[in-house]
Amino acid sequence: MIYVGIDIGGTGIKTALVNEKGEILVKDSFPTRAERPGEEILADMADMIRKLAKEAGIELTDIAGIGMGFPGLVDPEKGELVYAVNLPTCRNLAAGEYMQKTLGLPLYVDNDANVAALGEGLFGAGQGNTRCLVMITLGTGIGGGVIINGHIFAGAYHGGTELGHTVIVENGEPCSCGRRGCWEAYSSATGLIRAARREAQLTPDSLLWEMSRHDLDNIDGKMVGDAADRNDPAACRVMDEYLRHLAVGLGNMYNIFQPEVLILGGGVSGRGDKLLTPLRELMAGEVYHNDISHLDIRIATLGNDAGVIGAASLVMAEEPRG
Amino acid sequence: MIYVGIDIGGTGIKTALVNEKGEILVKDSFPTRAERPGEEILADMADMIRKLAKEAGIELTDIAGIGMGFPGLVDPEKGELVYAVNLPTCRNLAAGEYMQKTLGLPLYVDNDANVAALGEGLFGAGQGNTRCLVMITLGTGIGGGVIINGHIFAGAYHGGTELGHTVIVENGEPCSCGRRGCWEAYSSATGLIRAARREAQLTPDSLLWEMSRHDLDNIDGKMVGDAADRNDPAACRVMDEYLRHLAVGLGNMYNIFQPEVLILGGGVSGRGDKLLTPLRELMAGEVYHNDISHLDIRIATLGNDAGVIGAASLVMAEEPRG
Repeated sequence: MIYVGIDIGGTGIKTALVNEKGEILVKDSFPTRAERPGEEILADMADMIRKLAKEAGIELTDIAGIGMGFPGLVDPEKGELVYAVNLPTCRNLAAGEYMQKTLGLPLYVDNDANVAALGEGLFGAGQGNTRCLVMITLGTGIGGGVIINGHIFAGAYHGGTELGHTVIVENGEPCSCGRRGCWEAYSSATGLIRAARREAQLTPDSLLWEMSRHDLDNIDGKMVGDAADRNDPAACRVMDEYLRHLAVGLGNMYNIFQPEVLILGGGVSGRGDKLLTPLRELMAGEVYHNDISHLDIRIATLGNDAGVIGAASLVMAEEPRG
Repeated sequence: MIYVGIDIGGTGIKTALVNEKGEILVKDSFPTRAERPGEEILADMADMIRKLAKEAGIELTDIAGIGMGFPGLVDPEKGELVYAVNLPTCRNLAAGEYMQKTLGLPLYVDNDANVAALGEGLFGAGQGNTRCLVMITLGTGIGGGVIINGHIFAGAYHGGTELGHTVIVENGEPCSCGRRGCWEAYSSATGLIRAARREAQLTPDSLLWEMSRHDLDNIDGKMVGDAADRNDPAACRVMDEYLRHLAVGLGNMYNIFQPEVLILGGGVSGRGDKLLTPLRELMAGEVYHNDISHLDIRIATLGNDAGVIGAASLVMAEEPRG
C-alpha cells in the first residue's frame, strides 16, 4: 500500500507518497499562502496528491489514506483542523470530509509534534520502539509528542502532552502561555537565545558579542553553539545553564513516562553529540533514584522529511488492520 | 464472578472478596510481621482467601483472580514483588507462581498508587472515566497513578509515573529521591509539615505553635489545617503556600495528561472542599492557555477500602475478556 503524508506549515505545504517502509517515493511542495480561504488550500492539496500519484504511476485506489501534520489544534476523530496561529483560515475546517469527498480517501490528522514523534518512532531514531516513546522538539517552543502502544497519546480531549508547559522554576521566566517558569521558557531555542543575548550584553569582551557584530538581534541558537565550541567563556556559561535546565525537564519527563526511547528533535538537536554527551551525564542526577539502566536518549534522524514521513505513518498507525 | 483484592502494607495486610460492581462481600486483615520470610506472608494470604471464600459461601472456582496492591516495585508480567522499603523479605518474590500453585488462581499485581487510581477510576471518584485519569495521593510522599484506556500506564519498564519526582523549583528543597525541588518535597504531607514547623518556630505568638504545645514534633498535617480553619495567620500562610505549590504541580500534570478526571487522595485530601475550592481557582492560572473547560478535579471517595477495591479492580481490568 501507499500512504500520503502532508506537512502543513504557515509558509509551505510539503506532500509525499510513502511506502510501508517509510521510504519516500515522490514528493513536492507548494506555498501555503495562508491568507486565502482554507478550502482553496485543501483543493491545492488534493491536486498535489493527484499529481504525485500520476508521477509515481499509481491509482488513488492504491493509496491507503492521507496523513496530515498540522501546526496547531486538531480534532482527529472528526478529521478537523481546529486552530493554528499561523493558519487563521483553517479554523474548524472539515479537512477529512473534504478529502473523502474529493479523493475518496480517509484522512488522519494530528498535531505536528505528535506526528513527528510517531514518524521518528516507526522509521527514525526510535527504530520501532513505540511501546512508550517521548519526543521533544527544541524549536521556537518545545513540542512534545508521546507514543504509547504504537499510538499517539494526547490526553482525553486531544489537547494534552503540552510537555513544554510544565513549570520547572516556580516564579521563573515568563512563558508565552501565561505561566512563569515553564520548561519551554528555558529549553526552547528561544530560551537559549534570550539567555545568550543577556550574557552578550553583560560581556562586551566575549566572542559571542563579537560574532554578533555588536547587535543582539543577530544572535541565534547556532551562534551560541559555535561560540561555545570555540571556548568562549560567555557562550559556555550560557550553554551550560541551558543544558542544566534541559536535563531537569528531560528528567521530569523520564520520571513520568519512563519511555523506551527519548528523542530530541528541532533546531537545537542539530548539535548532536555535543548536546547528548553532557546531557547524558547531567540526566543521571535527574532520573528517579539515579537509575539510568533504561535511559536511552537519541537525536531525531528524519530531518527535513520528518513531517511528511510522520504524517504518512499516522495512516499506518491508525488505519484498521486485517 | 468474584474478585479478590489484597492490600499489602508494612504493618497489616487487608483482603476482601469484591463483586463486579466493586462492592465488598467479606473482608478481613492480619498483621504483616514484615520480618518473617516472604513465603510465610504469601501462605497467610492464601489461607485468608480460603477463609473468606468459605465465609462468603463460594468456591475458589467462583473467583476470577487475585489482585494485589504492593507498596513498591513490582513486575506485573512475571507476577513478582520486586522491592519495597517496608517489606524487605518480599524481594523478587514470585507471588504469582505461588498463588497459581497454591490456589489455582491467577495473580495481578501492581504498585499501590496505580491500583488506587484504577479503583477510584472504576468504582470511586472517577465514576468510570478511565479513558485518561490521573490520581495523586498526598501522603508521606506523592503517589502517582495514571489510567489510559482503562489500563494502568506505568511506562515501558513499569517504573514510570513517578509524578511526585518532577522538579517544580530548580535547586529547591532536597527530596528523598536525591534531586532538589521535586513536587513531592513541597506537596506531600511531609512537605506541608516541614513548612509548618519552620513557620511555627518563627512565630511563637501563633496558634499553630500553641496547638503544638510548644513542641515542633507534635505538628502534623491535620493540625496545620485546623489552625488555618481558625484563621491563625501563621497556619494560613503555610496553607496558602502549600496550595500554590500543589496547584503548580497539578497544572503540570494537567498540561501533560489532560485527564478526564484528576483525583486527589491521601491524608491531605481529607480537607475536601477546603482544599478543592481554592485549588480550582489557583489552577485556572496553571492550565495551558487558562483553558479549564475540561478541568475536573475531585477528592477520592473509596477511603479505607481503596486498597482492596483497587486491587480487585486490577483483575477486572487485566483479565482476558470474552
